[in-house]
Amino acid sequence: MSVLVVGSIAIDTVKTPIEEHSNLLGGSASYAALGASFFSPVRLVGVVGNDFPESEFQFWKERKIDSEGVQRANGKTFRWSGEYSWDLNTRETRSIALNVFENFKPVLPESYRQTDFVLLANIAPSLQAHVLDQMARPRFVVADTMDLWIASARADLDALLRRVNLLILNDSEAREITKETSLIKAGRGIRKMGPEYVAIKKGEHGALLFGDGDQFFSCGAYPLEDIHDPTGAGDTFAGGFAGYLAAHVQEDVTFDVMRKAVIYGSVLASFCVEAFSLERLRKLTHDEIADRYQMFKMMSQFEVLT
Amino acid sequence: MSVLVVGSIAIDTVKTPIEEHSNLLGGSASYAALGASFFSPVRLVGVVGNDFPESEFQFWKERKIDSEGVQRANGKTFRWSGEYSWDLNTRETRSIALNVFENFKPVLPESYRQTDFVLLANIAPSLQAHVLDQMARPRFVVADTMDLWIASARADLDALLRRVNLLILNDSEAREITKETSLIKAGRGIRKMGPEYVAIKKGEHGALLFGDGDQFFSCGAYPLEDIHDPTGAGDTFAGGFAGYLAAHVQEDVTFDVMRKAVIYGSVLASFCVEAFSLERLRKLTHDEIADRYQMFKMMSQFEVLT
Repeated sequence: MSVLVVGSIAIDTVKTPIEEHSNLLGGSASYAALGASFFSPVRLVGVVGNDFPESEFQFWKERKIDSEGVQRANGKTFRWSGEYSWDLNTRETRSIALNVFENFKPVLPESYRQTDFVLLANIAPSLQAHVLDQMARPRFVVADTMDLWIASARADLDALLRRVNLLILNDSEAREITKETSLIKAGRGIRKMGPEYVAIKKGEHGALLFGDGDQFFSCGAYPLEDIHDPTGAGDTFAGGFAGYLAAHVQEDVTFDVMRKAVIYGSVLASFCVEAFSLERLRKLTHDEIADRYQMFKMMSQFEVLT
Repeated sequence: MSVLVVGSIAIDTVKTPIEEHSNLLGGSASYAALGASFFSPVRLVGVVGNDFPESEFQFWKERKIDSEGVQRANGKTFRWSGEYSWDLNTRETRSIALNVFENFKPVLPESYRQTDFVLLANIAPSLQAHVLDQMARPRFVVADTMDLWIASARADLDALLRRVNLLILNDSEAREITKETSLIKAGRGIRKMGPEYVAIKKGEHGALLFGDGDQFFSCGAYPLEDIHDPTGAGDTFAGGFAGYLAAHVQEDVTFDVMRKAVIYGSVLASFCVEAFSLERLRKLTHDEIADRYQMFKMMSQFEVLT
């Protein structure tokens, strides 16, 4: 089954304490779509400008990422530039130029409207809602968000949450949205705002998944010694998660499938940070994913090791 | 098999944002010994003053904690008072009175010297070494430490590390001792200082275990919504860990046994924080431990769920 991915498509400049690269493909939808494409066909929604390289459309085609929903607008592509702190744990935005993104209104091609699985990658909640408005009853809606929308578009975000099956957000955002210091209270609290499931990303500490009642899952992060560029790790996690679900859900979405989706999302995110932009993901193979999945099993199971 | 536990025995006053209690049994050895006693007989080494309640000796006897190695010195028992921040994540020491602990030199009863498993709970590394000096070739030595010794007794600590099989420390201490921000680099780096195994405690984020080569294990923390008193959680983790090893190691210490020891240590620590002092652990049952172990399995496994 296909997954519809909507979000930003950007051209990034990224500076770490070690190196700086510019003219990188970036944006939440770029990472999420490529992450999802390892498991299922993707229908991509976004906007690019005249300066956007044609080669990316070619790449999407090769990856079974349908780009019919990517608008080509007159002007420049959204540009973002960020700089990471010495330990790569925090980053500062150096500049943003919204460009064609400023007036972006996602319009779904007719062929997209029946998609069962939807990933609303990180963009303004009003745009995420606008995508849902155009869809014929999707089976499962995953949404990502960020601190900016919690602070500046809270009413829109609250309205969206009631239409979402799974919300993905990071630990500081989970604390911010609930005003709870305990991540356990935060995860359970967010479920009361609407989403059946909540996934909290904790960076180097892995991820938590909350479902109904005592449904709870915790996974560590892959033990990487060197991270080259954390940009897009969360978007890739969301993409891998949604793509895995779209490919593996049978009748109902079960907590067992959700657990594995967390692991596959984490596997993909662990590759993402090994290089700048999407460079590692572009050459990633299914064998490498399978090997790292086995490693996740070895590092987290303490009984019935197979 | 027995485990020898040496550390501090204290009378604590603990203040959280909710409540304050005084005259509580505390100290690293008190928590560690009780934690270990759920799995194996314990031989306790420490010192108490004239004011120490006789009832604790009676309690230890009931729990198969041999207190022959607990010296009764003239003077008052070591006293510690601490206050936790609003989110219970940090604490400040309000007062310390070393009292009889000031001149403490652990002396091992003859019957203790052949013990195979040793837990050097948190005390000065020179005292930890002094205990090892009196022992006839222990099979497996576990040591806990703290930031104070990393800062003030580094040479002693470095010398001790070469005699230790497993070092347990928390995340900030692991970063401090190695000057690495990555916990993965820190864990692997500490192994190069001597210990075959390193366990890094991450509080609400669980624990990591590092062994030889790619031996790596990661476990989350039990999803507690309410923590009443974090005091002694780390000591209890170390006690449960060492006690489980002493009870379950056959010929060799394998990484598979170590994984389970991390889980049982985490299970005990999760109970410890549910009440002040040792109150929750005093009434803890083996059934409760078994139930929570199952819960750890449910929350961390994503295949072959049994």
